[in-house]
Amino acid sequence: MNTLYHYALSPFCRKVRLSLAEKKIEVGLVEERYWERDPDFMRRNPAGKVPVLKMDGMTMSDSAAICEYLEEAYPTPNLLPRDPKARFEARRLVGWFDDKFYHEVTAMLTGERVNRKVMGTGYPDSSNVKAGAKAIKYHLDYMAFLLEDRRWLAGNDMTLADFAAAAQLSCLDYTSDVDWNRSEAVKDWYAKIKSRPAFRSILADEVPGFTPAAHYADLDF
Amino acid sequence: MNTLYHYALSPFCRKVRLSLAEKKIEVGLVEERYWERDPDFMRRNPAGKVPVLKMDGMTMSDSAAICEYLEEAYPTPNLLPRDPKARFEARRLVGWFDDKFYHEVTAMLTGERVNRKVMGTGYPDSSNVKAGAKAIKYHLDYMAFLLEDRRWLAGNDMTLADFAAAAQLSCLDYTSDVDWNRSEAVKDWYAKIKSRPAFRSILADEVPGFTPAAHYADLDF
Repeated sequence: MNTLYHYALSPFCRKVRLSLAEKKIEVGLVEERYWERDPDFMRRNPAGKVPVLKMDGMTMSDSAAICEYLEEAYPTPNLLPRDPKARFEARRLVGWFDDKFYHEVTAMLTGERVNRKVMGTGYPDSSNVKAGAKAIKYHLDYMAFLLEDRRWLAGNDMTLADFAAAAQLSCLDYTSDVDWNRSEAVKDWYAKIKSRPAFRSILADEVPGFTPAAHYADLDF
Repeated sequence: MNTLYHYALSPFCRKVRLSLAEKKIEVGLVEERYWERDPDFMRRNPAGKVPVLKMDGMTMSDSAAICEYLEEAYPTPNLLPRDPKARFEARRLVGWFDDKFYHEVTAMLTGERVNRKVMGTGYPDSSNVKAGAKAIKYHLDYMAFLLEDRRWLAGNDMTLADFAAAAQLSCLDYTSDVDWNRSEAVKDWYAKIKSRPAFRSILADEVPGFTPAAHYADLDF
């Protein structure tokens, strides 16, 4: 049986869960309190982070490398386009959400509000929360700009870039940090991706002590 | 003419420069003081970072996406293995050096010692320098562990993982932050990669106001 060691509000785990589900690869989920650096877990994964995927005789870490592996070993359905330039654009946006969006927004909002308490690292830092609330506006506007002449973020087909973005936004939506009224295009895009069967397990996530926003799992939000 | 907007001591630019040179793709280098957020540069690259590569009618950012593009559009020589599992291992290590190693080591040492002064953000933070000096030992040991039964970091062939690692280490070597006596295997590996023609332009880099370590460009260090 394939096993994914994960943490519910990790956008990187969510990105991998979406890829696995879209490709119809069954996987057992094991919640991993990775910040406690359990020796068994550290042996499986010297980087000490989630996701870790046990599959095909490997113990894999690094969500970007995992998604590329899934794409090559399980190409149906394709989550990257065929043309190298279109593939570049999808990967550029995966990097944008995994790196820039995560550090500027998700770490500052969901990270401060939930993870600090769960991990026992103190109270939310209000200057970080303020910076995150400001940055998300810019990022939503950038997404709206991309969606002006594209059906999905990287072009006219759904790609890993949409999963990378939806993984971040769904964490932020759990903590009511997304203003869905800011852009009709972004809201429509999220409604489309949220209604996919691959999204179901993510909408069922619950972190003890933190109730998700009322509309979190609602397909008409 | 292809153009790479770069900053000499950015490991991500160095990784792309090594890929380009190994594939014999000619490129003009333009030094970009990206932290000054020049409006022209920001228009080319909304993420506001380097490297940015103008090539094949595209303006590309994100070093990981750029390297994957180069690999697909210019496959000779291959810098990723053919087998999906071996490709996973190479990409996992690229992620390790780009993300973990960079944040734990390069940002703490070269970042504090040089970039702060160049970018005018104050004096080095000595607790960061201390943390980086401690972390590099662990990372050199991890590399030595990998090299115990591999010729290169990800297996028996040279891959992007070696370039990702050498890009970080060469920045640290500029500021004399690598103890090459810690592991014979790591030193031998670096000597091999440092002597490749692709490395020449990196060994000629100079940042005004910071003289490189005496052995920086020496192939017998």
